Amino acid sequence: MLTAPLTIWAIPGIPEIVTGDDLAEVIGQREIDLRDGDILAVTSKIVSKAEGRFVQADDRDQAITDETVRVVATRGMTRIVENRLGIVGAAAGVDGSNTPVGTVLLLPLDPDASAAALRAALEARFNVRLGVIITDTLGRAWREGQTDVAIGSSGVRVLDDLRGTLDAQGRRLDVTVPAVGDEIAAAADLVKGKSEGLPVAVVRGVGHLLDPEAPGARVLTRTGPNDMFRLGSDEAYAEGFAAGKASHGQGV
Amino acid sequence: MLTAPLTIWAIPGIPEIVTGDDLAEVIGQREIDLRDGDILAVTSKIVSKAEGRFVQADDRDQAITDETVRVVATRGMTRIVENRLGIVGAAAGVDGSNTPVGTVLLLPLDPDASAAALRAALEARFNVRLGVIITDTLGRAWREGQTDVAIGSSGVRVLDDLRGTLDAQGRRLDVTVPAVGDEIAAAADLVKGKSEGLPVAVVRGVGHLLDPEAPGARVLTRTGPNDMFRLGSDEAYAEGFAAGKASHGQGV
Repeated sequence: MLTAPLTIWAIPGIPEIVTGDDLAEVIGQREIDLRDGDILAVTSKIVSKAEGRFVQADDRDQAITDETVRVVATRGMTRIVENRLGIVGAAAGVDGSNTPVGTVLLLPLDPDASAAALRAALEARFNVRLGVIITDTLGRAWREGQTDVAIGSSGVRVLDDLRGTLDAQGRRLDVTVPAVGDEIAAAADLVKGKSEGLPVAVVRGVGHLLDPEAPGARVLTRTGPNDMFRLGSDEAYAEGFAAGKASHGQGV
Repeated sequence: MLTAPLTIWAIPGIPEIVTGDDLAEVIGQREIDLRDGDILAVTSKIVSKAEGRFVQADDRDQAITDETVRVVATRGMTRIVENRLGIVGAAAGVDGSNTPVGTVLLLPLDPDASAAALRAALEARFNVRLGVIITDTLGRAWREGQTDVAIGSSGVRVLDDLRGTLDAQGRRLDVTVPAVGDEIAAAADLVKGKSEGLPVAVVRGVGHLLDPEAPGARVLTRTGPNDMFRLGSDEAYAEGFAAGKASHGQGV
């Protein structure tokens, strides 16, 4: 059985990104050899910086509120919210590390569109078929620590729907839909790191996931009726308590 | 700046595992070249099979109940529960795919201990320092699809605590603790796949995460007071409603 290796490496020497930088130009100027089927995993931070998504740090709380669609849970200083991209996480993605002093950084306005633009420019420059994934770091319910996930993508199937395929005994694998976009983001984080100035990784060996028509990473977000955790337990309990108390004497 | 590549490949030719198989022997007999710093990512399914963790399929609901410490949320046929390993997920890890017809498979009894035993045997056989991660597939709150995570580990730091290190501007990265054990599991899933009989991957290039004294993957689970999602929103609301209703007339 042939098993193609997966190889992932960070592109060295990417300079500090400032507002107005052309990321395809910055990445393209590095010594890289991009091939058909490669996927670039790009930290959302440099996309935001290139797009000038800075706000003054003294407005950080206001920035979080502005980016928030819905508060899910609050505990102490921690605000778990759904942001305007449909992503549930702490602080709505407003980022205060590795930004110029006095500023914080918002997420890209439309990470799927940013990924599509970067892909188009790099494909033209290198004359290859690529995928682009824009990553961010998210905490998780029930698990310690954070992992990188895909918040934007272009040209890559981020959900690899195996429903309908058969297992080795001929039974259907009917509930398995690997979130390969998130798995690629997580894999890339292992070489990009957080503080070393390595915001772009090349992922080679999963070219079978390339699909120019694939929907963006927005499909990875689950909100609305399928979300069993739309509120933190304390918040939902408190809502229920108030409603239960009010219901008394109303024949409920 | 030097950037070591990360390379991940599945070990081909691992036969169907049956109760009593010695996994170190089975893996060791394949043509593999293990080096100092390599990490093996092993699907929990083959660990469970080797350990004989089969139960009759007609007892599947009972098996899920037996493995459940606490029900978190229920919707239709879906039961999200905390299992005896502290992992919150669907069906308590009871697995009905790729098992002999008429049986389902429980998770390993103690995945950290299984990882430690496998590591010791492979380190002795190959005379190298290794890490071992035992993986399982988990759904997530707020995100579609599943990713592989580390449910057992030995010899690897699964949480890479960066708190206290400085960002490029000299500010502390004080909330970032990458769950690298889960990121390695996710990366390995990209080459192992679900239905192709490739249950073991070698991960080369993150040897800096090796630590013979590192705690097992149990540290990745978050339950108890730090869990803001101990109950589904509907379940917490219902509990609150009942308590609110009962509180009326009691001066609460």
